[in-house]
Amino acid sequence: MEYKRIQDTFYRIRSNKVFETFVISVIIFSALVIGVKTYDIPPLLTRVVSVLDWLITAIFLIEIIIRYLGDDDKPGFFKKGWNIFDTLIVVVSLIPIDNSELAIIGRLVRIFRVLRMISIIPELRMLLNSLLKALPQLGYVALMMFIIFYIYAAIGSTFFAKINPTLWGDIAISMLTLFRVMTFEDWTDVMYETLETYPLSWFFYLTFIFFTAFAFLNMVIGIVVSVMEREHSAQTDNQIEQNHDELIMLRQEIAELKQLIIDQQKGPVDVRN
Amino acid sequence: MEYKRIQDTFYRIRSNKVFETFVISVIIFSALVIGVKTYDIPPLLTRVVSVLDWLITAIFLIEIIIRYLGDDDKPGFFKKGWNIFDTLIVVVSLIPIDNSELAIIGRLVRIFRVLRMISIIPELRMLLNSLLKALPQLGYVALMMFIIFYIYAAIGSTFFAKINPTLWGDIAISMLTLFRVMTFEDWTDVMYETLETYPLSWFFYLTFIFFTAFAFLNMVIGIVVSVMEREHSAQTDNQIEQNHDELIMLRQEIAELKQLIIDQQKGPVDVRN
Amino acid sequence: MEYKRIQDTFYRIRSNKVFETFVISVIIFSALVIGVKTYDIPPLLTRVVSVLDWLITAIFLIEIIIRYLGDDDKPGFFKKGWNIFDTLIVVVSLIPIDNSELAIIGRLVRIFRVLRMISIIPELRMLLNSLLKALPQLGYVALMMFIIFYIYAAIGSTFFAKINPTLWGDIAISMLTLFRVMTFEDWTDVMYETLETYPLSWFFYLTFIFFTAFAFLNMVIGIVVSVMEREHSAQTDNQIEQNHDELIMLRQEIAELKQLIIDQQKGPVDVRN
Amino acid sequence: MEYKRIQDTFYRIRSNKVFETFVISVIIFSALVIGVKTYDIPPLLTRVVSVLDWLITAIFLIEIIIRYLGDDDKPGFFKKGWNIFDTLIVVVSLIPIDNSELAIIGRLVRIFRVLRMISIIPELRMLLNSLLKALPQLGYVALMMFIIFYIYAAIGSTFFAKINPTLWGDIAISMLTLFRVMTFEDWTDVMYETLETYPLSWFFYLTFIFFTAFAFLNMVIGIVVSVMEREHSAQTDNQIEQNHDELIMLRQEIAELKQLIIDQQKGPVDVRN
Repeated sequence: MEYKRIQDTFYRIRSNKVFETFVISVIIFSALVIGVKTYDIPPLLTRVVSVLDWLITAIFLIEIIIRYLGDDDKPGFFKKGWNIFDTLIVVVSLIPIDNSELAIIGRLVRIFRVLRMISIIPELRMLLNSLLKALPQLGYVALMMFIIFYIYAAIGSTFFAKINPTLWGDIAISMLTLFRVMTFEDWTDVMYETLETYPLSWFFYLTFIFFTAFAFLNMVIGIVVSVMEREHSAQTDNQIEQNHDELIMLRQEIAELKQLIIDQQKGPVDVRN
Repeated sequence: MEYKRIQDTFYRIRSNKVFETFVISVIIFSALVIGVKTYDIPPLLTRVVSVLDWLITAIFLIEIIIRYLGDDDKPGFFKKGWNIFDTLIVVVSLIPIDNSELAIIGRLVRIFRVLRMISIIPELRMLLNSLLKALPQLGYVALMMFIIFYIYAAIGSTFFAKINPTLWGDIAISMLTLFRVMTFEDWTDVMYETLETYPLSWFFYLTFIFFTAFAFLNMVIGIVVSVMEREHSAQTDNQIEQNHDELIMLRQEIAELKQLIIDQQKGPVDVRN
Repeated sequence: MEYKRIQDTFYRIRSNKVFETFVISVIIFSALVIGVKTYDIPPLLTRVVSVLDWLITAIFLIEIIIRYLGDDDKPGFFKKGWNIFDTLIVVVSLIPIDNSELAIIGRLVRIFRVLRMISIIPELRMLLNSLLKALPQLGYVALMMFIIFYIYAAIGSTFFAKINPTLWGDIAISMLTLFRVMTFEDWTDVMYETLETYPLSWFFYLTFIFFTAFAFLNMVIGIVVSVMEREHSAQTDNQIEQNHDELIMLRQEIAELKQLIIDQQKGPVDVRN
Repeated sequence: MEYKRIQDTFYRIRSNKVFETFVISVIIFSALVIGVKTYDIPPLLTRVVSVLDWLITAIFLIEIIIRYLGDDDKPGFFKKGWNIFDTLIVVVSLIPIDNSELAIIGRLVRIFRVLRMISIIPELRMLLNSLLKALPQLGYVALMMFIIFYIYAAIGSTFFAKINPTLWGDIAISMLTLFRVMTFEDWTDVMYETLETYPLSWFFYLTFIFFTAFAFLNMVIGIVVSVMEREHSAQTDNQIEQNHDELIMLRQEIAELKQLIIDQQKGPVDVRN
């Protein structure tokens, strides 16, 4: 009973608008601290920032403890992706790091704190979910594009490796070069270089650009169509369905009418008999 | 009464097609004057342009006075955004500027006069409104993109600041560099530089490109869908609604029919009794 | 009568599939001749090409005469855009040009012969018409974009003319530079140059990119929506309209039913009296 | 009878999920082998890769034999595009190549083996088919674009050939340069070069960009519209058609009602007589 009361208190705290706003403010503040650290700052400010850093970690730790204690379903708490993410961020931030090798991980974790923004603001969480939901339907198109990239990269590194090993040295570098060609970034420089040895290599680049542009276009259209489908059905189809319901009601009424007339036909006859 | 008559006169003037065309012509002329000033022109022409400039300001001043005097709702006149904008442009143009520091503001104000085109032509005003209306629904996607930019910029300036301080010196410059990467402008030059120190940094660029492209695509689709929604409902749904109305009328008529038959059933019986 | 018979003969010729195919072949051949002329060719071939050129002109001349003679509405013949275009191409080709100044016009006219492809193939003519039909609705968005370009070009040449006169010398050059920025072509080079003098000039470029991208996006969406509207209404709305017709027929039948029942009500009563 | 039994056995093998997974694994493995070959590898590994290569060819050979023997319609087997492709890949792989000229063909064929992925996985095959289906409707737009390219290339090589023969030497190179301009890749460098001689040549580039962008946009919209048409009709129209069926049923019932009343009208009268 006593325990239940404490849990309720914590639940009230975490559901409190003020608490939520405070946590968002701390996240924004931690983002600013990260930004400040990228500038050349005097040693004094560095120490201030360092203290603020630990303060933020402490607040995040307390926040997660409050959220954990206020949760009804304690074993399920660490099954939710965002809770795991939040906890990991805090735990790694708590590890004291002196070693310069690990220091980078510490800095990265502090940067990833900004992502907590998404875990806190429901609208951003929804947006991310809707983005992730659109991904699977792109699976096969992505596979198709990877096959195109792989084949062109294999051909490219087979023929052009001797011309420019920096661009076509092996299949991995070739794929990076092809991605560059796909973004049109100085792709003619890449082409002019190989055109000297293989005068027909323009065919290689042009077909690649057409294939990838076409596949990419298809991906985009695929997403647009599926998104519209969803949005559209919710609106117009509702109206059409209403009409459908109306029609069914009409049929029922006509059926009743029919019954009435049949009864009537029998009725007067009965009276007369 | 006398005052009312004057206001009516001014109202007639400002609603006059000739007056409107004249003002648009003056705006176009002022745009041309601005254009001429960017060329190397002989001193005589400079003086002519300067005189024309004051003439345009005078015409704009008179125009605003006419529009103000012709307005029914005088206190509401300066609550409309475009009226404030127009007045500000004229007032600042009137300030005599000799100081070279302020001269730039004077020149800027004269350039912004071209924007009066939008305040005068209703179609452009509507277009701008429809553009502005599409903005709020992009709010959260823009916030998401800012978070992506911020995190990548923080990572970028943490790791690459020593490699090239011009591109990755601090978080602000890093964000500008990332915007450059997003527009694919010489992004491979940026990448090749960091690849030498961090051979896996291609992952940084490719994920960034994918995330921003994906988020941007989502923004575009969001606008397309919402625009279509609006347009679509106005057309097809109208028809469907007409069908709905027709159905409801049908039901009423059948209900009347039913009543008729019920009455008939009772009727003859009554007669017989 | 005799005249009518000749006209009919010419009409039959111009409507003949073989004749049409022949003309298309000649156009394709003339395109090839134009292509050949861009290569370094031996003097003999040059003379052959020159002869072929006159042959093509002759065939085109004969073709237009046939089409003119075979036309019912002779005064209307030269009111159709494509007929004027075809005739102009032939007439200018016929002018003997020795002067090197005018020689360029002669060469251009021969190149524009390829456009006759569009005037001959109906599908291409339809495609062009549908493209042209989409243009007017872009009018105001184009005007809006021009205003954006003009204002930014005026600001650009006011501030940056001293930094780089080649890019920002006057308003015309500035607009070209801004178009370059809009296509993202080495836009960072343009920006980095001005950033040295005006550290806040990134704001100039970023807002410009946002405004133009946004306006451009709006243009594209505008076309997509209007095209879809047209396509869509032809399909679904047809079905909905059919339902509407069906509903109206239903109402008529119910009205007849009502009349029947009313008649019946009166009928038996009459019989009884 | 005996023969039929063998065919059934082979049919069972080829329809077996394990067999299919095995073949896909071999294809992926062959792709990896191709990738490995692009790296500098020690001679021992080269020999291992060579052996693996022959092993893969052998497995593919056996697989095709199994699929052939398990097929009901043996003469029709080699009429299917993918079967021909698969067989060709295997047959060419079997040819022992020592000559360095032909060695390249051998390497290419091994690379194209990765395409077997598409022939094996049904989803990819469907995706490719849907991509190919969208192609024909682009035919005329592609022709239009080719005409635009051809005319601009002819004009370009006529005027600019002397300025830069590498870019504008003949009509073929000019078309490649124009494709580069269309992708915005360093197009301003191309333009600035010709602007020096022909100060109005910006008009050439800008109109070209507008025409191609406009035609390209039209192509994209064409595909989007046709894809949506297909998707849309399958969903909403179904509902509308249901409503239509419901309406027809309603009409039938009302017709029955009418008949009933007419019968009734006659009925009682008959009784009375």
